[in-house]
Amino acid sequence: MDLSHWGWGYADKFLSREARMQLGDLAAAGLGFSPLGLDEPVSLDDVVLPDTVVNAPKTLLHLFDGTSEGRIRNTYGRAYRDILRGFRGDFASAPDLVAYPTSADEVRRVLDWASDAKVAVVPYGGGTSVVGGVECPRRDREEAGLNGVVAMNMARLDAVDEIDPRSRLARIGAGARGPALERKLGEHGLTLRHFPQSFEFSTLGGWIATRAGGHFATLYTHIDDLVASIEAVSPVGALKSWTLPGSGAGPSPDRFLLGSEGTLGAITAATVRVRPRPRYKASATAVFATFEAAAVAARMLVQSDLHPTNCRVLDPREAGLNGVDGAGRAVLIVGFESDDHPLEPWMSRALELVNDAGGACEAPVRYVAPGADGQRSSQGADTWRSAFIDAPYMQTNFVSMGIIIDTFETACTWSGFDALHADMIREVRDVMKRVAGRAFLSCRFTHVYPDGPAPYYTFACPARRGAELQQWAEIKAAASEVLMRHEATITHHHAVGRTHRPWYERQAPSVFLTALSAAKRALDPSGVMNPGALIPAATPPGGESAM
Amino acid sequence: MDLSHWGWGYADKFLSREARMQLGDLAAAGLGFSPLGLDEPVSLDDVVLPDTVVNAPKTLLHLFDGTSEGRIRNTYGRAYRDILRGFRGDFASAPDLVAYPTSADEVRRVLDWASDAKVAVVPYGGGTSVVGGVECPRRDREEAGLNGVVAMNMARLDAVDEIDPRSRLARIGAGARGPALERKLGEHGLTLRHFPQSFEFSTLGGWIATRAGGHFATLYTHIDDLVASIEAVSPVGALKSWTLPGSGAGPSPDRFLLGSEGTLGAITAATVRVRPRPRYKASATAVFATFEAAAVAARMLVQSDLHPTNCRVLDPREAGLNGVDGAGRAVLIVGFESDDHPLEPWMSRALELVNDAGGACEAPVRYVAPGADGQRSSQGADTWRSAFIDAPYMQTNFVSMGIIIDTFETACTWSGFDALHADMIREVRDVMKRVAGRAFLSCRFTHVYPDGPAPYYTFACPARRGAELQQWAEIKAAASEVLMRHEATITHHHAVGRTHRPWYERQAPSVFLTALSAAKRALDPSGVMNPGALIPAATPPGGESAM
Repeated sequence: MDLSHWGWGYADKFLSREARMQLGDLAAAGLGFSPLGLDEPVSLDDVVLPDTVVNAPKTLLHLFDGTSEGRIRNTYGRAYRDILRGFRGDFASAPDLVAYPTSADEVRRVLDWASDAKVAVVPYGGGTSVVGGVECPRRDREEAGLNGVVAMNMARLDAVDEIDPRSRLARIGAGARGPALERKLGEHGLTLRHFPQSFEFSTLGGWIATRAGGHFATLYTHIDDLVASIEAVSPVGALKSWTLPGSGAGPSPDRFLLGSEGTLGAITAATVRVRPRPRYKASATAVFATFEAAAVAARMLVQSDLHPTNCRVLDPREAGLNGVDGAGRAVLIVGFESDDHPLEPWMSRALELVNDAGGACEAPVRYVAPGADGQRSSQGADTWRSAFIDAPYMQTNFVSMGIIIDTFETACTWSGFDALHADMIREVRDVMKRVAGRAFLSCRFTHVYPDGPAPYYTFACPARRGAELQQWAEIKAAASEVLMRHEATITHHHAVGRTHRPWYERQAPSVFLTALSAAKRALDPSGVMNPGALIPAATPPGGESAM
Repeated sequence: MDLSHWGWGYADKFLSREARMQLGDLAAAGLGFSPLGLDEPVSLDDVVLPDTVVNAPKTLLHLFDGTSEGRIRNTYGRAYRDILRGFRGDFASAPDLVAYPTSADEVRRVLDWASDAKVAVVPYGGGTSVVGGVECPRRDREEAGLNGVVAMNMARLDAVDEIDPRSRLARIGAGARGPALERKLGEHGLTLRHFPQSFEFSTLGGWIATRAGGHFATLYTHIDDLVASIEAVSPVGALKSWTLPGSGAGPSPDRFLLGSEGTLGAITAATVRVRPRPRYKASATAVFATFEAAAVAARMLVQSDLHPTNCRVLDPREAGLNGVDGAGRAVLIVGFESDDHPLEPWMSRALELVNDAGGACEAPVRYVAPGADGQRSSQGADTWRSAFIDAPYMQTNFVSMGIIIDTFETACTWSGFDALHADMIREVRDVMKRVAGRAFLSCRFTHVYPDGPAPYYTFACPARRGAELQQWAEIKAAASEVLMRHEATITHHHAVGRTHRPWYERQAPSVFLTALSAAKRALDPSGVMNPGALIPAATPPGGESAM
C-alpha cells in the first residue's frame, strides 16, 4: 500500500469526495459545526521544491537520494501544520538530500561528512512527529550556520536479532517500524507491547528519541522503561551502553539519550525488554455521571497497585465523538492482561473500586482465556481501539474540509488537575471562538499514574482558508500558556521538537538546559544534529554560565 | 545515642571484648576460619589530623565548623576501607572545614565562596557511602587544582512539607534521614517505602545522588522511580524541576541528577512519591536443593507480573550465615504487600510457580490483614530482616578481629548469570586463598527484574595486619574484572564514588563520559564539586572529542 506524501499513513485512507461529504455530515453532528467546503490536495507531481544547495559526497553517493519524491517524503512529520502545508503543496522545508544508511558505520560516515561540510542532519524515522521534530526549516539551518540539510532516513537499520527469551530481551534496529518488529518478535511468541497511536508507521529509534508513550495506561508503557541499552552514533563517535536490568553506576546514559530528539546523535539500535504475548485478558466499561467522578475512579484504580493495563477515561464529548457513549456520560475503560494467570481477582477488586466511585458497568466483563472463544475485549474497548487507530486519518480528511482538528497532551498532579482542566476548557474554548467562531474541545486520560493523570485534549474549529496556521498557532499558544501557569508539562508523549520549544525553555530548569547545551556542543561540535529541535540551534555566547 | 566516629552506626553497637570473642567463635563456625586476634579502636581524642589549610569565609562563619571532631565525623563513608582506617585512627583525608547550610540559599553562598576560593565541596549526607563517595583525599583535590576541602553536611535541610495525600507526594529536604522522614510521613498514614540497608543513617539527598536501591525486590524500590522532582544548587545556579507524574519533554533533568554523586551540584530537596502504609501482607519462605533452582523460581516470579514486594534468593552459605537455613539448602523469600486488597490470589499463584520450580514451603504462609493479630511475616523473612539491618555492625566488629568482610553487587541478564556466577565464585575464592589463605564467599539476589537478577556477594577472609587494604584491593579488583568481562554493571546500588571509578570508566560509553564531563564543566567551571568522584577530577585536554 502506498503512503500519502502529505497526509497520515496510507494514501487510500484519504476518502473520496463523496465519502468525505458524508464524513462532514457526521462531523457536523459530533463537533457542532459544518465543514466549510471540500478541497483537493496538490499532487506529488505538482509540488515545486526549492533548489538543492548541497551535493552528496562522492564516496557515499550510493547512500543518497536527491529525487523530488524522496525529498518530499522526508520533509515533514504529521502535525496539523505539516498535513495542511503538504495538502497545499508547500514543501519549502524539504531537505536537500535524503541519506539511507544501512549500518551504524554508514551513519558515522554520513555524520563525518556532514560535520566537515557543515550540513544539518535530521534523523528521520517513521516521519510521524507532531511537533516539528523532523522538519529543519531554512531559518534553523541558517541560525546554526549550516549550508544545507540532509534527512537521514533510518529505515534500513531494521534488523531484529539477538532475541533472548530467557532474559526477555531483543536487539532491534532503530529503523524498525511497529508492525515489522512485532511480526518478528511474534515468531518467538514475544511482543514489545509498545503501541503508540503512530504504531503502524513509527520506529523504535523514533520512540526512543522522543520518549514515546505506549497505549497501556500503567506500568511498562513508556519506551523509557522498555529500553535495556542503546546504540547511537554522535558526530564524535559511537556509543553503546551495556544491556543491564538495573544499574546504579552514574547517571543513566540511556535516560540521557531518551528524549534527545536527534540533537546529540542518531540512535542506531536498542536492546529492549520484551515479553510473551498475553493469554488472559479482562476488560470492562463503566459509565459515570460526570468526568470528575470517572477521574476519581481512575485515581483509585491506579493507586490500588492492581496495575491495570488499560485505565482510560473519556469525558462525555470524547465518548460521543468516538462512539463509545452517546448519552452524555463519561466513560472509564479498565482492562487487565497477563500471560501467566487468570484475572478474575484483579478485575473483581477493580470493579469494587469503580462501583465505590459511582460507576456503572452496563455490559458484563469480557474475559479471554487460552483456548476460550471469548471476545477480545469489551464493547467500549473495541469501539475505542478502532477510533484510536483511525483518529489521525480523520484529521487528514478534515484538513480538506476546512476543519482544524488537533490534539495536545500533558500530565499534572491529581491535586492540580481540577484547576488546570477548568482553565483549559474555558481559555481554549474562548480562543477558538475568537479566531474561528466555533469551538469543540474534549478531554480524555491516556495514562494515569499514582501521582497524577495525563489529560489529552482534542480541539476542533472551522478554518479560514489561508489563515489556518495563524488560527492554529493562537489556539496552541493559549493551551500552552495554561500549562505553563499550572506547571503542567508542555508534552507528556508528543515530544518537544520545534513546536514546543518556546514553552519547553520555560519548563526545563535553565541550569539543566545549560548542561544539555554543553553536552550537545561536546558531542556535536559543528552543530549539525537536528538544529533547532529541542534546544536552540545556536547557543548564545555566555549561555554556559546563565542561571 | 552517639554515633561511632569510625564504625557503622551507633557507638554502643561495637561490642565488648567478651561479646566480640563470642562473636568470633560464631564467625569461625560460619565463615570457616577463626579471628586472628582482638584489637581496640583509636579513640576520638587520640586521632591526629592534618592541619587545616583554608579558613572559613568571614561572612559565613556561623555555618562552618573547624573542630577536630566535626572534621573527623565528616571524613569518610562506611566502606571496609573507611572503617579500617578509622579504627586505626587514620583520618588523613579529613576535610579542612565542615559547612552546615540551613537553606538552599546558604548552599548557594557556600558554593559561591568555594568556587571563588578554589576549595573542594563534598556534599555529605548520612556518611554511609561504601565506595569512597564522600572522601576527598589530598590527591584528588590537588589534581583538581584546589586549595582545600569543605564537607558540606546537609543535615539541617531536613524539612518534610507540602504533603499531598491525594497525589501521594511529599516534599522532603535532602538532609532528612530515613527514620525521621518516615516518622513525619507516618503522621499522615504515608510512607516513602524506601528502605536501603543504610536506612537508619542515610539521607534522601544521598539516596538520589547515588541512585540508592530500596529493599523491595520489584517495581518501585529504586529511588529513581520515587522521585517526582528535584531541587539542587550547582555552582552556576539553582535548579528546580517541575513535579510531574510523567513527561516526554526532553531528557529527564531528574535522571540527569540521579547518580551524579555531588559532582554537578548539591541536591537540596525533592518531591517524592509516597503511599499509604500497607495493611495487607503475605510472606512465604521456600527451600530449594540448589541455588540454581531457587534462581529459576525467582525468574518465574518476576516474569509473572505478580509484582512481589519481596523476592529474595539466598544461596546455602548466605542462608546459613544469616540463620535462615542450616541444612545447606537455598532459600527463596517471597512476599506481597498492599494497602488496598487481600493478597491470597497473588500468593497462591506465586506458590504454584515456586512449586513448579522445585521449591518447598515448610512453614505455612503468613498473612497479615487489618485488625488481625497475625505475625508480620514468615519466620525466614523475620530472621532475614534483622540480619539485614545488623550486617554492617558485624563488619565493624569483625574489623577489630582481623577479619576482612565486605560485599559487592551487580546486575546482569538471566542468560548471563550462570557464567558470571561460576567465574565469580572461582576467581574470587582463588584470590582470597592467595592473599589470605582462607576464603568465604556467598551470594544472594537483592533485586530481580524481568530481564535479570541483581546478585550480591559477601566475602570474608583473614586479614594480615598492615596489609588489609592491599588484600582488600586485590580481592575487589579480581571481582571487578569478572564483572567487566561479563559486561555486568560495576554497581547495582552502591554507586561509583572513587572506589569503582576505574571500572566505571570502562563500563560507561566514552561518548557519554565526554557529554557528562562537558556538562560538569558547564555547571561547575571551577571544578569544586566532589572532585574525583564518578568522573576524573580534571578532564585531560582534548577529552571532548575522544571517541
